[in-house]
Amino acid sequence: MEVREFPEPELEPGAVLLDTLLSEVCGTDVHLLHGRLADTPYPLIPGHISVGRVARSNGRVTDVEGREVKPGEVVTFLDVHGTCYACWYCLVAKASTRCPSRRVYGITYGADEGLLGGWSEQIYLKPGVRIVPLPEALSPRTYMAGGCALPTALHAVDRAGLRLGDSVAVQGSGPVGLMATALTRLAGAGTIVVLGAPAPRLEMALALGADHVVDIDQVGPDERPRVVRDLTGGRGSDITIECTGVPAAIREGLRMTRDAGTYVVVGQYTDAGEVALNPHWDLNRKHLDVRACWGIDLSHLHRGVQILTRHRDRFPWDEVVSAEYPLAQAAQALRDVEDRRVVKAVINPRV
Amino acid sequence: MEVREFPEPELEPGAVLLDTLLSEVCGTDVHLLHGRLADTPYPLIPGHISVGRVARSNGRVTDVEGREVKPGEVVTFLDVHGTCYACWYCLVAKASTRCPSRRVYGITYGADEGLLGGWSEQIYLKPGVRIVPLPEALSPRTYMAGGCALPTALHAVDRAGLRLGDSVAVQGSGPVGLMATALTRLAGAGTIVVLGAPAPRLEMALALGADHVVDIDQVGPDERPRVVRDLTGGRGSDITIECTGVPAAIREGLRMTRDAGTYVVVGQYTDAGEVALNPHWDLNRKHLDVRACWGIDLSHLHRGVQILTRHRDRFPWDEVVSAEYPLAQAAQALRDVEDRRVVKAVINPRV
Amino acid sequence: MEVREFPEPELEPGAVLLDTLLSEVCGTDVHLLHGRLADTPYPLIPGHISVGRVARSNGRVTDVEGREVKPGEVVTFLDVHGTCYACWYCLVAKASTRCPSRRVYGITYGADEGLLGGWSEQIYLKPGVRIVPLPEALSPRTYMAGGCALPTALHAVDRAGLRLGDSVAVQGSGPVGLMATALTRLAGAGTIVVLGAPAPRLEMALALGADHVVDIDQVGPDERPRVVRDLTGGRGSDITIECTGVPAAIREGLRMTRDAGTYVVVGQYTDAGEVALNPHWDLNRKHLDVRACWGIDLSHLHRGVQILTRHRDRFPWDEVVSAEYPLAQAAQALRDVEDRRVVKAVINPRV
Amino acid sequence: MEVREFPEPELEPGAVLLDTLLSEVCGTDVHLLHGRLADTPYPLIPGHISVGRVARSNGRVTDVEGREVKPGEVVTFLDVHGTCYACWYCLVAKASTRCPSRRVYGITYGADEGLLGGWSEQIYLKPGVRIVPLPEALSPRTYMAGGCALPTALHAVDRAGLRLGDSVAVQGSGPVGLMATALTRLAGAGTIVVLGAPAPRLEMALALGADHVVDIDQVGPDERPRVVRDLTGGRGSDITIECTGVPAAIREGLRMTRDAGTYVVVGQYTDAGEVALNPHWDLNRKHLDVRACWGIDLSHLHRGVQILTRHRDRFPWDEVVSAEYPLAQAAQALRDVEDRRVVKAVINPRV
Repeated sequence: MEVREFPEPELEPGAVLLDTLLSEVCGTDVHLLHGRLADTPYPLIPGHISVGRVARSNGRVTDVEGREVKPGEVVTFLDVHGTCYACWYCLVAKASTRCPSRRVYGITYGADEGLLGGWSEQIYLKPGVRIVPLPEALSPRTYMAGGCALPTALHAVDRAGLRLGDSVAVQGSGPVGLMATALTRLAGAGTIVVLGAPAPRLEMALALGADHVVDIDQVGPDERPRVVRDLTGGRGSDITIECTGVPAAIREGLRMTRDAGTYVVVGQYTDAGEVALNPHWDLNRKHLDVRACWGIDLSHLHRGVQILTRHRDRFPWDEVVSAEYPLAQAAQALRDVEDRRVVKAVINPRV
Repeated sequence: MEVREFPEPELEPGAVLLDTLLSEVCGTDVHLLHGRLADTPYPLIPGHISVGRVARSNGRVTDVEGREVKPGEVVTFLDVHGTCYACWYCLVAKASTRCPSRRVYGITYGADEGLLGGWSEQIYLKPGVRIVPLPEALSPRTYMAGGCALPTALHAVDRAGLRLGDSVAVQGSGPVGLMATALTRLAGAGTIVVLGAPAPRLEMALALGADHVVDIDQVGPDERPRVVRDLTGGRGSDITIECTGVPAAIREGLRMTRDAGTYVVVGQYTDAGEVALNPHWDLNRKHLDVRACWGIDLSHLHRGVQILTRHRDRFPWDEVVSAEYPLAQAAQALRDVEDRRVVKAVINPRV
Repeated sequence: MEVREFPEPELEPGAVLLDTLLSEVCGTDVHLLHGRLADTPYPLIPGHISVGRVARSNGRVTDVEGREVKPGEVVTFLDVHGTCYACWYCLVAKASTRCPSRRVYGITYGADEGLLGGWSEQIYLKPGVRIVPLPEALSPRTYMAGGCALPTALHAVDRAGLRLGDSVAVQGSGPVGLMATALTRLAGAGTIVVLGAPAPRLEMALALGADHVVDIDQVGPDERPRVVRDLTGGRGSDITIECTGVPAAIREGLRMTRDAGTYVVVGQYTDAGEVALNPHWDLNRKHLDVRACWGIDLSHLHRGVQILTRHRDRFPWDEVVSAEYPLAQAAQALRDVEDRRVVKAVINPRV
Repeated sequence: MEVREFPEPELEPGAVLLDTLLSEVCGTDVHLLHGRLADTPYPLIPGHISVGRVARSNGRVTDVEGREVKPGEVVTFLDVHGTCYACWYCLVAKASTRCPSRRVYGITYGADEGLLGGWSEQIYLKPGVRIVPLPEALSPRTYMAGGCALPTALHAVDRAGLRLGDSVAVQGSGPVGLMATALTRLAGAGTIVVLGAPAPRLEMALALGADHVVDIDQVGPDERPRVVRDLTGGRGSDITIECTGVPAAIREGLRMTRDAGTYVVVGQYTDAGEVALNPHWDLNRKHLDVRACWGIDLSHLHRGVQILTRHRDRFPWDEVVSAEYPLAQAAQALRDVEDRRVVKAVINPRV
């Protein structure tokens, strides 16, 4: 980790330059630091979800509503870039998050390709990067409380097919788990049980809409399904959303879900090993739906901004962002995230 | 296994007595013989799917279309009996195959409860048993070629959400796998690959609509996903239907399915142990839908009869029934099924 | 309309007798009074949705959770009775609200068949009537604020497939429209626009979660789609729910829904004539989904009670019930409902 | 209508030039001739669905599978061009057929914009036009038998959610109705009833998989729903697909569909006036799903080619193409289509 100087870039037609306001430090960045993602072009500028002020653009650039993006506006953008809308996955399967052309700001671009990460005073938005303006009512900090976790959780909640009053178990109390908690609460869930640790994150879960929390440092893996069943009328949760990154969670999660319920897998972002299941008891006999969920697209980012704006006063969102760090302390930010000393850290390159 | 004499039963109001024509010998019966199903009330009369001729009824009994069932008619019936339509699973979750009141002819009734299994000269249909007449064009033997496997596979195919032209991998060439092959072919699948053994069953799979077969005695577990991908444009099957009963098949099956495809688990009817998966590679990153499928209801039996009748000349269905056995040779029938000497055996108690 | 005396009934095995606490006066009762429903067996005891205290039962009677219903408990019950779970609609189409055997308390039973309507000091629950206990936290009056409109609206909202943040137009501010407003708000809708009249009902709509109301006495039919479009970013509502009973509303509703949106028709409960549409502009070119919604089943009643209990403090539900009337003033109650002097009336036969 | 000479075009990078083999004459072209489509830039070169041989390209151009398109290959292409994948309809609603940037070869491009229609010796494929190679086994003439009707009908059949054995009514025996007949047969429909005229088209419907045909010149509008009900067990069709272009068909179609069935509207491509419905009887009480279906995307064209190739010997597809016309007889082709003297005409500019 080191701070480098780059020249201010020239803008291609259709490109936009942002003055960075905030950029997220997320679990993926910890994985990046430890080299756990394949084919990463080190060195790179981390920071995939960011918010910035438009400095300038080369020509007229519009958002998804067709409105021109103007200098001075505060915006975010979809970190995923280059979805081709020309391949079989994009056009036939309509599974654009599996498009092989996708590249991601702060993850798959090397530093020699430009200012293509958010931990930087400026961010270069290539032509075609999808920009979403932040409404004035939504502060950059509240937006960063959602960060990449909010659209990720929204994708998972969409996949869950939640109906009014459905009970929900959320496995994990990291940013994605917390956002899944808030979003299922907003979507009219009945009982919500969050299983995670440590205690401050479980406090946050309660503040974001959980009815019950289960501290996994206190309650063992074999007990957790039983606890969830006890809290959901003896049957298990209608819907369980896995947001842990821990393979063993899959086994527990299937077992805490009621027969004919739905299990969404969104947390297994990196290869952390295997898990053993019993397909008779855990799948077939339960008549379960298991829906795995990869990545986000513009719809999740766009809708997430609208949802957060509308409900900005419903929850103490800002408390999810424990601390802002200047660029020079990015290494410390990563350590604090890795050691769970903070729920979420953000880089503010202008302090 | 022994043949016993029972008195001809009295009929309660709403009950029907059948003279048995044919009754199935299926893999479940082998499990029953070896005591692999929990809470089974031995001794019992096996035979869950059967066809018979109506001997008499006590009062007016109707089928699902409201037509009266009359003596002399050839009928089958839903082996599942007693679904309550009063419990939470039936009425709120609308998952009636998980109704705890369900009982099953030939499996959960003891011999002291009456003629409640098909390996018998007569079958006693309790009031409320759902009867489906066989159209005249559909011979009892062709119907038994479908047997319990056809409605089971139909449930799985419904869950698969197949679209015209989708490629399909079927894991398993037992009765359920063969019927899944025939039904996905009838439903307009594109390439169908069946993975199973031994060779005669794979021949049958080709006769029932498969484009390609993979002999699992020749091709190892690690190779099978690659073979399926090679046969499906390099991406894997749009839909995979597991019909094996072997836990390890789950791992292979997930890996042979394309990203954002659908995996249906219908074959894990008994507890045969665990399987290890990698939830990052096998689920999350693939953005898969996994749909487990338990049991059948009347819709599957009723629609199955209509489908089979319509397409009775499309495939050599009857060849699935390798042999008819008299009651006295039921033990031999079970051995032949267990040792895979036959694809499917049926009991004919009148020879 | 007259008050009659009936003898206290004998109970068949499985029957339950309720002491009525409250029974609803709904628009259907006005239709009944004017003879607008076909094949109604006059004279009858009106009142389809009611709440009462269990007086006694003949034998053990359980609710959908399997818990015994005991004397002294406050309960409601599904007015729909006799769904057969034996016919093609119930078992094959799984469209039980179209079961031809269904009968409805307070509508399809004549007075000579017993105390089978709620405008009575006691209600006779036949064997098989589905009972739902009210949690202690839910007052009978709050429950009646939902009445039959709440499960009806819940069915419509389920059909709508609402996603977090979707904009909603609700056509109609009667009880069903008001409940659709509250439920879509609870389900995380974005902008909600309610179109109705008179002003007090629109006030109520705002109290139950609407963002905007359109007074149809002020804004003409041709203007309404434009007003909704203006309030929803120029495109129209993602979802529109019709709760009016007025054929012309269909035309307006299709036009206020955005392209590729969803239009739910739930308000056309009686034959009020025809409406002219342009299928090119109103359907095909808009790529709309139109989902018509008939009746309710136990799931809607059961879930509705849980939802109302959880959110009992979120809205001023009780204000929907404008007035309680003794049995002797039932005719006045009907007039007040018909003339829209009250939002909702209830009969309290014990005052 | 006149034949004009154009210079052979220069190719932009990414553009492809085709030597036209065949181009379709469809009902839309008749509408074009009579000026029934809004905002059409006359004069134009008609012909939206075409097949041609690649003459040359400027640079490497690939198909949706990523394979390079090479000179000499026989290909078709998606007539819809310019879907932006940047607007709210494309990215948030995921309803790309409602993208306002879409333009269509042979319809929305004027002749002064280039060789952007198929009734021409050569067709200029702009950069980004989606190309689908025809497999060798699929003759250009068989492909044209499907023409634009096949992917249109495939979109409608996808929307219908057909399950194995569902009964289908197809309204209309023009190209879209005939293709909907063939595709629902391939998708495993049960009874298929086609309502249309004149007799030769009904003959063709029978050849393409219909079980029954109803000649609308013989059977009046009020009778047709009853006829369909009689042919479908008294209940009506599980699924009805409207392919007529006649508003009055909507009314009949809703009435011939069974309760809780599905009605797909795909034929109302132009404004042909209004139709009166009774929303109580025709929608609400029937608990219908109505799914309107606009346009096609690449998935329908691509899958359509695969489906047609696989099933090329199943039906006498080629007979749908009644006649090939040289360019000089295009006016005659239009008259023959308009007067229903042919089922389908194609232009062959090389004869």
